[in-house]
Amino acid sequence: MSQRLKLIVAYDGSAFAGWQSQVHRKTVQDQLERAIHRISGAHVRVHGAGRTDAGVHALAQCAHVDLPDRRMDGARWVMALNAVLPATIRILRGRYVSQNFHARFSAKGKTYRYRIWAGPILSPLDLNRAWHVKPPLDIHLLGAAGERFVGNHDFAAYAANRGKHEENTVRTIRSVRVRGRGPNLSIEISGDGFLYKMVRLIVGAMVRVAFRKATLAEIDANLRTGSFKGARLAAPAEGLYLVRVWY
Amino acid sequence: MSQRLKLIVAYDGSAFAGWQSQVHRKTVQDQLERAIHRISGAHVRVHGAGRTDAGVHALAQCAHVDLPDRRMDGARWVMALNAVLPATIRILRGRYVSQNFHARFSAKGKTYRYRIWAGPILSPLDLNRAWHVKPPLDIHLLGAAGERFVGNHDFAAYAANRGKHEENTVRTIRSVRVRGRGPNLSIEISGDGFLYKMVRLIVGAMVRVAFRKATLAEIDANLRTGSFKGARLAAPAEGLYLVRVWY
Repeated sequence: MSQRLKLIVAYDGSAFAGWQSQVHRKTVQDQLERAIHRISGAHVRVHGAGRTDAGVHALAQCAHVDLPDRRMDGARWVMALNAVLPATIRILRGRYVSQNFHARFSAKGKTYRYRIWAGPILSPLDLNRAWHVKPPLDIHLLGAAGERFVGNHDFAAYAANRGKHEENTVRTIRSVRVRGRGPNLSIEISGDGFLYKMVRLIVGAMVRVAFRKATLAEIDANLRTGSFKGARLAAPAEGLYLVRVWY
Repeated sequence: MSQRLKLIVAYDGSAFAGWQSQVHRKTVQDQLERAIHRISGAHVRVHGAGRTDAGVHALAQCAHVDLPDRRMDGARWVMALNAVLPATIRILRGRYVSQNFHARFSAKGKTYRYRIWAGPILSPLDLNRAWHVKPPLDIHLLGAAGERFVGNHDFAAYAANRGKHEENTVRTIRSVRVRGRGPNLSIEISGDGFLYKMVRLIVGAMVRVAFRKATLAEIDANLRTGSFKGARLAAPAEGLYLVRVWY
């Protein structure tokens, strides 16, 4: 009987080619699987709550793994993994859970944050950590655009590879909150689930409205028809942070 | 007649072997001199307000350079430099100043910030950007230790290479402010001038007191006698930020 370990994982997305295992690319999943093998000798598969793209950061990604035994408790696994993982990945917590728990399928929702720097010059310390857009950007329009996405909608117009991986493109966005202090803006989006690139496409649409390159009515029409009219913009990966997975 | 250009410069210290020019090492000064040469063809020397060590960040370092002519105004220089510099260095402002201005000798004071993460696990996003110390650390003692340094003192005990480069080791610290939210602490130190490694040695002494490995009385004695008793600890470079140079 295997033992299911749940892990909360943070990483600097700029150091990896995304979450998902890839041949000849450094990914978070590969690093975790290699670290577990180095510690226990076991070849296991790590299941993440979601596959973040290259450049996307995680403050608290969630994952589970089935271990062959329970020789080490959760706290020991946290220490052992952090001792062998690169410092660009940290295990924040670890505990055993029931076999009914699945990092991806048990998730009830996720919260993402998107950071924007709307000033003339991007600080070197925000490099790879925020989307640099040139001012002026209307923060009230940014918030108003975010509001249009809240609720239960068909997000087909705000998904990449539409219909390829996902049959049902209806999702519920619980909240979109815009906060800003000067040029330093952040958008926090919570929802029950997200299609591929959905957060980045929503943020891209919000920013286009805030630059008066698109209207609120266009967002409403895209959500109603499920097909995108006009120029679709995905906000770049480097501004995106997976903040929390809800179970 | 040369034209003196004043530059405000931000950089990510983890990308450089410090400010000062070095053979076969990537330094901020070298990058700036090379960028100016690429733009104007001129071989010039860039003078910084202070030489930050490898790993030390700058939010607003100040520098001046004497250009052979005034063909481009300050704003054009900012754009031209940012176009050729690596994104780990950004020029925030540029303007011509009188020949009487000297980035180093005209400085009336500097403000540094030191970031500490006093939690069990350092976030990957704070890697190379904060000093990771293991809790518990007494933030009230940290503040009390900082207060001892405020005022006019002989800082000989809190300088590296003492007496080698500096004859007069008396300096005035105007303020030491400790701010904290959970494990995320910052210390802001302003003063009229700083000896080599002085900020890092002060922060190291403060942290030793906050860990109850040293006493406030020891700091007082070291400031009084000018010689260090006990274990001297320099806080690591990666937590240090040059915030502002005062003229």
